[in-house]
Amino acid sequence: MTSAAVSNPTLFFNGGILQGEGVEHATRRIKDLDNVFQDTKVFGKTDPETLVYEVSSFLPVAEGTPGGLYFGLTHIHPGKVGNEYFMTKGHFHALIDRAEYYWGIKGEGVLILMNENREVWAERMFPGSLHFIPGRVAHRVANTGSQLLSFGASWPADAGHNYEEIRKNGFARRLIDKNGIPTLI
Amino acid sequence: MTSAAVSNPTLFFNGGILQGEGVEHATRRIKDLDNVFQDTKVFGKTDPETLVYEVSSFLPVAEGTPGGLYFGLTHIHPGKVGNEYFMTKGHFHALIDRAEYYWGIKGEGVLILMNENREVWAERMFPGSLHFIPGRVAHRVANTGSQLLSFGASWPADAGHNYEEIRKNGFARRLIDKNGIPTLI
Repeated sequence: MTSAAVSNPTLFFNGGILQGEGVEHATRRIKDLDNVFQDTKVFGKTDPETLVYEVSSFLPVAEGTPGGLYFGLTHIHPGKVGNEYFMTKGHFHALIDRAEYYWGIKGEGVLILMNENREVWAERMFPGSLHFIPGRVAHRVANTGSQLLSFGASWPADAGHNYEEIRKNGFARRLIDKNGIPTLI
Repeated sequence: MTSAAVSNPTLFFNGGILQGEGVEHATRRIKDLDNVFQDTKVFGKTDPETLVYEVSSFLPVAEGTPGGLYFGLTHIHPGKVGNEYFMTKGHFHALIDRAEYYWGIKGEGVLILMNENREVWAERMFPGSLHFIPGRVAHRVANTGSQLLSFGASWPADAGHNYEEIRKNGFARRLIDKNGIPTLI
């Protein structure tokens, strides 16, 4: 029988960046985050090109494929708009019962969760934290530290995203810096 | 509006071990790995209690739940049976089109993959490697290093496991230590 070498992986994290064939990169700047932060006055004065977060995704099958899995890596830069931390838009899944995992890789943050009754709770995110996000629960992440926050994610390819509900009605609570302590109000 | 504290996560990695409410731990010893290694003579002489690998799993919904997601952390100890590295049993998914992700966390290993035509290939696994395992592809991991190999996994809750096909017919190629180089033969 012939012998064969072992290949390098086609996907890998290089200095925290997900790289490899088929990986897609997206950026979210202040100008992309209308309706996310409460302090519209400070928001309006912030440079619209300010980078808030970046997402690298590996989406190997068509969206909607049952049983397919997607993988993502998100980096949220440190920063605030008023007393609110830089954070992701947040979303429910379009197929609302779909679950997701997030896990902390670098930096400090808070995962903010809200169910369909608009009840909100939050978990600390740090290197080694793992978060199961059940179906029917909206999720958003804030960088509460002074360094880059990086976290991994895995979700079903048929989950989809419903950003609209959060864009219109927001989360029922906001995470603010209250005397240096991340606090839900 | 009342203010609320942010909770600690319910799941976390503590020194590489997945901990938290609902996490299940399983061990695989030499005595559990009948029919895995080629050298049955050396296998028979190995202490049956020798620990080969450990799996911590978080299975928050019933197996078979569509859209549910499972999460696992596997530690393979360093060692060999003859010239074959300590490795997992390997499996197809019961629902064979279900995909999975593995990613390297600690140590050095090789992910061995085989499709339904029994074609085998392999990828190096290391801290930061990410591996997409498409549906219809059996997967097994070998620890090719001298330290513990740890890797994470995420897979759909309706994937299930088909260990039987591999137990009966094995992989079409084996990964052996050939003059210190992991080689598929």
